[in-house]
Amino acid sequence: MEQINNYIETHKDRFIDELVELLKIPSISADTAFSQDVLETAKMVEKSLADAGCDKTQICETKGYPVVYGEKIIDPNLPTVLVYGHYDVQPPDPMNLWDSPPFEPIIKETELHPHGAIFARGACDDKGQFFMHVKAVEFMIQNNTLPCNVKFMIEGEEEVGSDSLADFLMENQELLENDIILISDTGIIGNDVPSITTGLRGLSYVEVEVTGPNRDLHSGIYGGAVPNPINVLSKMIASLHDENNHITIPGFYDKVEILSEAERSEMAKAPFDLTEYKEALDIDDVYGETGYSTSERYSIRPTLDVNGIWGGYTGEGAKTVIASKAFAKISMRLVPHQDWNEITELFTKHFLSIAPKGVKVKVTPHHGGQGYVTPIDSVGYKAASLAMEKTFGKKPVPQRTGGSIPIVALFEEVLKSKTILLGFGLDSDAIHSPNEHFGVWNFLKGIETIPYFYKYYTELAK
Amino acid sequence: MEQINNYIETHKDRFIDELVELLKIPSISADTAFSQDVLETAKMVEKSLADAGCDKTQICETKGYPVVYGEKIIDPNLPTVLVYGHYDVQPPDPMNLWDSPPFEPIIKETELHPHGAIFARGACDDKGQFFMHVKAVEFMIQNNTLPCNVKFMIEGEEEVGSDSLADFLMENQELLENDIILISDTGIIGNDVPSITTGLRGLSYVEVEVTGPNRDLHSGIYGGAVPNPINVLSKMIASLHDENNHITIPGFYDKVEILSEAERSEMAKAPFDLTEYKEALDIDDVYGETGYSTSERYSIRPTLDVNGIWGGYTGEGAKTVIASKAFAKISMRLVPHQDWNEITELFTKHFLSIAPKGVKVKVTPHHGGQGYVTPIDSVGYKAASLAMEKTFGKKPVPQRTGGSIPIVALFEEVLKSKTILLGFGLDSDAIHSPNEHFGVWNFLKGIETIPYFYKYYTELAK
Repeated sequence: MEQINNYIETHKDRFIDELVELLKIPSISADTAFSQDVLETAKMVEKSLADAGCDKTQICETKGYPVVYGEKIIDPNLPTVLVYGHYDVQPPDPMNLWDSPPFEPIIKETELHPHGAIFARGACDDKGQFFMHVKAVEFMIQNNTLPCNVKFMIEGEEEVGSDSLADFLMENQELLENDIILISDTGIIGNDVPSITTGLRGLSYVEVEVTGPNRDLHSGIYGGAVPNPINVLSKMIASLHDENNHITIPGFYDKVEILSEAERSEMAKAPFDLTEYKEALDIDDVYGETGYSTSERYSIRPTLDVNGIWGGYTGEGAKTVIASKAFAKISMRLVPHQDWNEITELFTKHFLSIAPKGVKVKVTPHHGGQGYVTPIDSVGYKAASLAMEKTFGKKPVPQRTGGSIPIVALFEEVLKSKTILLGFGLDSDAIHSPNEHFGVWNFLKGIETIPYFYKYYTELAK
Repeated sequence: MEQINNYIETHKDRFIDELVELLKIPSISADTAFSQDVLETAKMVEKSLADAGCDKTQICETKGYPVVYGEKIIDPNLPTVLVYGHYDVQPPDPMNLWDSPPFEPIIKETELHPHGAIFARGACDDKGQFFMHVKAVEFMIQNNTLPCNVKFMIEGEEEVGSDSLADFLMENQELLENDIILISDTGIIGNDVPSITTGLRGLSYVEVEVTGPNRDLHSGIYGGAVPNPINVLSKMIASLHDENNHITIPGFYDKVEILSEAERSEMAKAPFDLTEYKEALDIDDVYGETGYSTSERYSIRPTLDVNGIWGGYTGEGAKTVIASKAFAKISMRLVPHQDWNEITELFTKHFLSIAPKGVKVKVTPHHGGQGYVTPIDSVGYKAASLAMEKTFGKKPVPQRTGGSIPIVALFEEVLKSKTILLGFGLDSDAIHSPNEHFGVWNFLKGIETIPYFYKYYTELAK
């Protein structure tokens, strides 16, 4: 295993060049205008798996975008690691806030990334992170140090809810058989504070449409006399939180896992600097549910945020119009025991019930997923912890984070395996935002760490 | 005067063709991308005035778009009518709701317009309506029946607040000297219910911007812990009305003209069918200030409406983002005695005061104007009433409407003249909306009626 450092030193420029090529393709799954690019990316991913030394690779058609599969089976009696990742990316909007074009990757130094960071949509989420696994496996195969079997399952619909993946799992349970699932789609607290994500929030994502009059109206002639769907939508959204920022949907908190005071004070020991947090975001105060700390608000508590809103005239200048329709995209982050289907139903029922007379309201669920908690006494967690300790020089902190990888709960349900969330990004990498980037140091540190996970996991699993 | 009907019969196809040419140019003053088209339109308007027989025409430069001036002075001792109109149009958005392209005029029959209506942006507001005056004056000049002097002042910034017109009035008081101002930029109750607008509401139009974190964030990682500007903006907008739909801005109602019960019951006699109103808009209920009828809500009461809102991800699919900024365009319709500058200040002060900690709020006033009331015992009103009675066969109803022509109050202040609002559109003409149109019957009825106004006005003004 120790050769990994030499291998990285020799090949790192090529690793980065290969990643840059992958980042150049705008594989935006949310926008059908880019469907050819998504398919093109799938082909490139398959080739990278074959080049790394997989014995078998395959582009598996689904009803949506394909799943790229690859495997290297060295001995059926040895454990099998299933690597999951996604080759699709978030839309890059708002485009005008990017300092360089999102699909023309460039490497720049930043304060947190003195060795440079790759700036591009998908650099961290998730092309850069799944590609670490491809390169780590390449090393192990080329140097005959792969200690167990490995399978890859890289999908193209993660950013739009992994709609086809459930069917794919169901139909390919044998192909996907494994002992542990390994994912790098999360982050570490800092380059000097390694951490492993042990909890993920679930997600319910809906789109709402409020219709007032059947056409846009002149606000002078009709203003004040007809329901204005934007005013109504604002009022409906506002009512979803009370004065303590509790969510007002009846039943919303019924199944929320309540942590003991002991657990909360244990979690409160994780390093967190509120002043730095506010400064980094340039906000003069945080905002959230009364009675919980900032790190509790984004980890152990469910939340509701509007992700987008639009209606009426949004161009330059002034237009005195009352829109016929107003829209919003709303997502709820859920905690263990909350069921996303149930929450979606509760939201829908409540949102329809608060619509005033005079408007029509439509709620369309987009996608969702269950939350997940990784047990820290499992073999997989221990192997990941040892691997990070080896390469970072300190033991990683277990951390619950607020993000969602909805598919993780499904993996456990269908494939009966636990998932280890071994990510190497930083919170500041601006995933889902303009100027997304991924530290070169982090990318290479991931490639260095992953082979140790295989080593320790194979040893401990015996 | 009686020759007008023959003249219309002979020339109506040409009148319509000429209007269609004018409608083809997208003179959208709100969007700088169309500035050449706006200037092109000004030239075409000037030519139409010269063609009609004006002795003097001129494109008068301003710091914004030019004012087109024209005059026919037959005797300085006779009264002078000043015709005001505007050649700019509203933006056509949302484009996808137009049945035919907004700048490719077509004539189609509708239920309310069995003789056909011209569908195009600006057909009614205001190209079609000011062009009636050009053609009516053409008739009077060509047939030597013009009984007084006439001046035209057609501007190009009405839809964006007439910013340059105040200076233009100030600098050209002598040129613009007149006895009465005549405007067709309003409507009638129905083709069988002629009416004259006697009251207009004032307007204050602002744009607001709420900034939370300094960049877009991943809603999983930050959701629930930072101020989400869309949620905050929704809450701020919602709070601008109380449970009775009264506006909550302190001082907002202080100067509102309170009508006596007698006046209110007089107004309530105007024909208004709530069931038809709701059916035409496809709403199951109206919505507005408690204690007032629908026609009061849009005429004698001030209102506040959001005209546009936007923020976060508004594209296809789902993006789990917390936006850095959210925006809204908000307009307030004002009634007599409310000063738009003062209201804009009250709004700004209040809106900034309700911002929660954690966000930054900016309010940018767009434009505004004072309300106006025309006295129905004035010579101008009487002449207009007689003219309509002559051509419609029934006496018109005086009507206060909710729209604003902010410049009318300024006319009185600077030019010391009263304004007569002699419009021929219908509420259903969809001005400011997709599929704006103007009845061919209405267009020709306007051309027929206007010469009678000149006749009666000249007679009564003696």
